[in-house]
Amino acid sequence: MVIARVIDSPSGTQVMPIDTLRDSVRMAAGLTDNKLLDQKAITRGLAAIHRFGDRLRGFKPKQVRAVATNTLRVARNADSFIEEAEKLLGFPIEVIKGREEARLIYIGASHDAPACSGRRFVLDIGGGSTEFIIGDGYEPKLLESLYIGCVSYSQDFFPGGLVDAHSFKQAEISARREIQAITSQFLKAGWKQSIGSSGTARAIAELIAQNGFNGPPHDLPVDDMGGVITKDALLALKQSLIESEYIDRSELLGLKNDRRPVLPGGLAIMLAAFEELGIERMEVTEAALRLGVLYDLIGRSQHHDMRYVTVEQFMQRYGVDRQQANRVSNAAIFFLNQFAKPKYENRKDNEQILSWAAKLHEIGLSITHNGYHKHSAYIATHADMPGFSKLDQARLAALLLGHTGKLGKISVTSNYIDWRMLFSLRLAHVLCRRRADEKIDEIIVKEQEGGFVIKVPKEWVKKNPLTQFGLEKESTDWKKIGRELTIQVF
Amino acid sequence: MVIARVIDSPSGTQVMPIDTLRDSVRMAAGLTDNKLLDQKAITRGLAAIHRFGDRLRGFKPKQVRAVATNTLRVARNADSFIEEAEKLLGFPIEVIKGREEARLIYIGASHDAPACSGRRFVLDIGGGSTEFIIGDGYEPKLLESLYIGCVSYSQDFFPGGLVDAHSFKQAEISARREIQAITSQFLKAGWKQSIGSSGTARAIAELIAQNGFNGPPHDLPVDDMGGVITKDALLALKQSLIESEYIDRSELLGLKNDRRPVLPGGLAIMLAAFEELGIERMEVTEAALRLGVLYDLIGRSQHHDMRYVTVEQFMQRYGVDRQQANRVSNAAIFFLNQFAKPKYENRKDNEQILSWAAKLHEIGLSITHNGYHKHSAYIATHADMPGFSKLDQARLAALLLGHTGKLGKISVTSNYIDWRMLFSLRLAHVLCRRRADEKIDEIIVKEQEGGFVIKVPKEWVKKNPLTQFGLEKESTDWKKIGRELTIQVF
Repeated sequence: MVIARVIDSPSGTQVMPIDTLRDSVRMAAGLTDNKLLDQKAITRGLAAIHRFGDRLRGFKPKQVRAVATNTLRVARNADSFIEEAEKLLGFPIEVIKGREEARLIYIGASHDAPACSGRRFVLDIGGGSTEFIIGDGYEPKLLESLYIGCVSYSQDFFPGGLVDAHSFKQAEISARREIQAITSQFLKAGWKQSIGSSGTARAIAELIAQNGFNGPPHDLPVDDMGGVITKDALLALKQSLIESEYIDRSELLGLKNDRRPVLPGGLAIMLAAFEELGIERMEVTEAALRLGVLYDLIGRSQHHDMRYVTVEQFMQRYGVDRQQANRVSNAAIFFLNQFAKPKYENRKDNEQILSWAAKLHEIGLSITHNGYHKHSAYIATHADMPGFSKLDQARLAALLLGHTGKLGKISVTSNYIDWRMLFSLRLAHVLCRRRADEKIDEIIVKEQEGGFVIKVPKEWVKKNPLTQFGLEKESTDWKKIGRELTIQVF
Repeated sequence: MVIARVIDSPSGTQVMPIDTLRDSVRMAAGLTDNKLLDQKAITRGLAAIHRFGDRLRGFKPKQVRAVATNTLRVARNADSFIEEAEKLLGFPIEVIKGREEARLIYIGASHDAPACSGRRFVLDIGGGSTEFIIGDGYEPKLLESLYIGCVSYSQDFFPGGLVDAHSFKQAEISARREIQAITSQFLKAGWKQSIGSSGTARAIAELIAQNGFNGPPHDLPVDDMGGVITKDALLALKQSLIESEYIDRSELLGLKNDRRPVLPGGLAIMLAAFEELGIERMEVTEAALRLGVLYDLIGRSQHHDMRYVTVEQFMQRYGVDRQQANRVSNAAIFFLNQFAKPKYENRKDNEQILSWAAKLHEIGLSITHNGYHKHSAYIATHADMPGFSKLDQARLAALLLGHTGKLGKISVTSNYIDWRMLFSLRLAHVLCRRRADEKIDEIIVKEQEGGFVIKVPKEWVKKNPLTQFGLEKESTDWKKIGRELTIQVF
């Protein structure tokens, strides 16, 4: 269960979770062969719902939506369970169809996942069913729900927790057969980004990150290393499980006890999907179904790129001086675009990141003026920023940290620092310090061997002694990290 | 120069600095024997003012106040300098008398320094004059300005930067003679808290902290160790300077080059004031005169304890759910007051801190929901919180960090954690999770050997399954750090 606050801004609305209750009751495991929920599962389920109802007391009906998925779709005694559960919850419980579940999952994932300009594929492996969705923006286009799930597959193919190569092969073949029904339709539609949104996807991504199956650690901060699943990493994870023989004997870092009984089945389905649909890399998102239910409940229109909404809301939340933010943004982009674009550079993407950095560079002022850039970077590193990938956030945080003060703190080996972007932002910051509109269109920047050159008109320098002072300081700061910054007055 | 934003709240107004320009021009050093400002000082001064004027372009006259102090009070050619300076600044410059300077310093210091319920003594050692003030709340009562200053004393008693025991003795005697004129009047008025507000005080506090003259490091975070000057530490600092023979040879950590020429004189005056007025310990505040000018400019009435204003403003800034904050605050204090008060405990003070912690425990939600308590603690550690001492902030941050989640992160040796306060806050947090008014008046808490006991009525437990769950988790969390938490149902 998630409880969230709705926050509006001119460019769109976001829901901001303020409380989460997680209870791993694994209802699917309580389904008997003749599709009846057994008493143990009913007791576990009702106890959890009782607690949830306690938390929801006082909420109005239109503020709450409770949905039930596959297990209650198929259990023959679902009605009596739901009747009991509604009493304890205090709100109606809606059993939703597979397609509706897929639709809500897509809405949730598309609001939370890294922004993407093309089509998205979302895979959600549940306990008893798995949803496959392709969409565009926030709009799901293709929706499929298949009866394969991590609970049922673990029980059927890995009885007693025995994990060997043969079991995996059988489970994968079985899952691929199911998926084949939709393969051609999905491949025809195509996608640019693939997203995993279930507990299975999150657990797998976590295991991959903690055990280094994605190869040597890159330079993202440790707690940002999760979030991506690659095919090679999946195979390495499977190999490691097979070597431990029984899932309960596995000593993988980050493998939680309540995940052990359902991991093998979930992994087999994930492998089958990668294989069958030719996936190489998948982003993992935190919340999907629950977040989708909330966005669907408020049903407001959004900017097509959620990052704009996030930046807008952050400016609002941290009381950013908007005029100043826009000034710095315009100046920074003016300077960046004076540099010739190297072939490998995605200039449009860099312009966006630079502009967002300019808009958010002062968020840390809300904490304190002294060293506020460190606090801006702290917020950008740790905050939930819907639409931003972990890499986006790391690049943003690096620009915020480096936009003023000494440069030594910026690692020269960091591969998410673009020096021309940082230079443009710093220069914009120095020139706009007066918080008034500045005439900067005659200022020329260019690269030189090992650094930069800034050309400023003589007249302009005379009129702006503070800026001249700032430019000289800038030159000293760059020299300290071994880069040349020449100020030419013409 | 400081530029600040004015922020109102129901309980008062605060100015929040957003930009600072510091330029150490040491005008007093440019005064010749016949009280004329020499050309070098005039040039340095005008260059700085030119830069400041550049930053202020576009401001309206009523938004700016520029004041000049001692050197321009005494320089015989001050008028021509000021005329020139006003042109470059674009705003009138007011030469204020010593008493007015003292008044503004007091206003600034009293808004920024740790809250204090009794009288305050403020000492501000300037370049050419030193201000002594006693006040109550934000109201200065006794104001004196003496012609002793760190620049003139360094020049007169430590020529060429020679620092020996004899020079110190002469300087201290001379300063004490000046101070004697006010000693009896000041001692008669008396004070509870003594505050140093000048650059000299800040530099001395920094040297003391960085070189360990306050004795072995206590458990405050490193960057919070500054801020206090003791008499023993002053003597140790003097001894260290004498051993280096020349101030330029001193290898003290944190001694900045622009402070070297004026430190000996400033230290001698500080020592004389400690000796003459019987001071043992002094808090150091960041800004005084400049902050006082700003508060005087807006002239609004304030809550007598600035901490209330700060907490109010933080709740506003970080969008805290006020009803919930008050609920948790009331519950926490209800539980704390069930514990007998040990003799050494300042219960009233603890109630305040606990209540503020409850009011601010959710500020980190503005960053993200997951692990928000860490972000709440981060903000409380790093934010400017007028009225709060560094120790207050450290205690607050410890409560925020520990109010939920595992307890292992709270250092058991920390001497600013009060376990009964933390227990009360955690319990309040668990009980109020539903964000609705809870009937908790029948819940009894008490201490037991190595831990706590909570007694809850049977009926109540039945009705609150989520809370029961929470209490059991709480019990586990305390057990993990070796403390017993017993839940008794009656």
